[in-house]
Amino acid sequence: MARVSQEHLDARRRQILDGAARCFARNGFHATSMQDVLKEVDLSAGAVYRYFSGKDELIAAIVGEVLGQVHEGFEEAAHSVPPTSPDLLVTTVLGRVLASRESLTVDGRPAFPRLVVQVWTETLRNDELAALLRDGYGAVQDAWTRIVEAYQDAGMMRSDVSPEHVARTMMSAAMGFLAQQALFGPMPADVLRDGLRALMSVQDHSSVNLLETRSN
Amino acid sequence: MARVSQEHLDARRRQILDGAARCFARNGFHATSMQDVLKEVDLSAGAVYRYFSGKDELIAAIVGEVLGQVHEGFEEAAHSVPPTSPDLLVTTVLGRVLASRESLTVDGRPAFPRLVVQVWTETLRNDELAALLRDGYGAVQDAWTRIVEAYQDAGMMRSDVSPEHVARTMMSAAMGFLAQQALFGPMPADVLRDGLRALMSVQDHSSVNLLETRSN
Repeated sequence: MARVSQEHLDARRRQILDGAARCFARNGFHATSMQDVLKEVDLSAGAVYRYFSGKDELIAAIVGEVLGQVHEGFEEAAHSVPPTSPDLLVTTVLGRVLASRESLTVDGRPAFPRLVVQVWTETLRNDELAALLRDGYGAVQDAWTRIVEAYQDAGMMRSDVSPEHVARTMMSAAMGFLAQQALFGPMPADVLRDGLRALMSVQDHSSVNLLETRSN
Repeated sequence: MARVSQEHLDARRRQILDGAARCFARNGFHATSMQDVLKEVDLSAGAVYRYFSGKDELIAAIVGEVLGQVHEGFEEAAHSVPPTSPDLLVTTVLGRVLASRESLTVDGRPAFPRLVVQVWTETLRNDELAALLRDGYGAVQDAWTRIVEAYQDAGMMRSDVSPEHVARTMMSAAMGFLAQQALFGPMPADVLRDGLRALMSVQDHSSVNLLETRSN
């Protein structure tokens, strides 16, 4: 029997993950059975179980892959000098993740945001997935915190605010943007970029308010 | 038979809605039956069905109430002169909504953010709820758009950015902040306020970048 090449194994794995993601995005985790996944990818149970022991392993692999990609994007940014401005950074990474999942569609519409929101809900009742998400988001938050420190060191951002709070806020913006897409349909990442830029222009009034509050 | 006062009817309705919200936050919509809700609120089927025809009506009432509260907060802000700065506005309204749902707990922990994320997922498969959410968010977005126009008119924010994009970005920040609380536990609204303030201090560099992009 001919040995199966690594390339073939990788392609097969990819095919299974993509098919499972389509099933999950379409019907949710609970309503999707391994039978549905087998049908979707048109492979035998033996072929699929060789790679994944079941639904939980499929979900974990999909989530791990996405979080890894997000983390990589911000980790890279954490090392760039001078640091990329927040409006560009968040939309570049988000745009890249969305673009790489463009082929994930349900009824011809992009389904990645739907999948993300379903993962969030699934973690409320799946402790292993919750731990995976906590670790993954934790790594992204660490990278963001270092980026914020770089902004502050470079004098690009006021330094009297906790970098962790800024990191959480930037992640909020990206997560909420995905949630809106899941609920109301696709939106170009430029919408978020524009909004962040506009917010960046409100500087003076906020500082004045802050000083006023302090002097009282 | 004594006539039942409006006050009593309102209190009963409140009791049912709060109990149902607890059930939904704890176990999700699909795993919650009307029997569970009856047990939670300790009322007879007759008493509950007098107010709500079933789960869908309960979910719709809960969602409508929250969206109404959020809309009211921003609608009020849309009429204030001078307009409240975005960092204060978003965290005031969000803080008020979170405070008013403080009694909604599961295992002693705040459960409102969990409920929100579950509603998002539920809309992916419930067209009526999706329509309700679209209308509710649409009204909030309209209010936000008018607030952004007021910022721009008052010279508080650059006016070359679409107010709708800013509105969507502010809503993203709030929605993502709730999602993070659902996933990782409670966080004071001050975290988001600080992050938005820090972002507001990045003004200059963004403007420079923009001008550079334009002149190329």
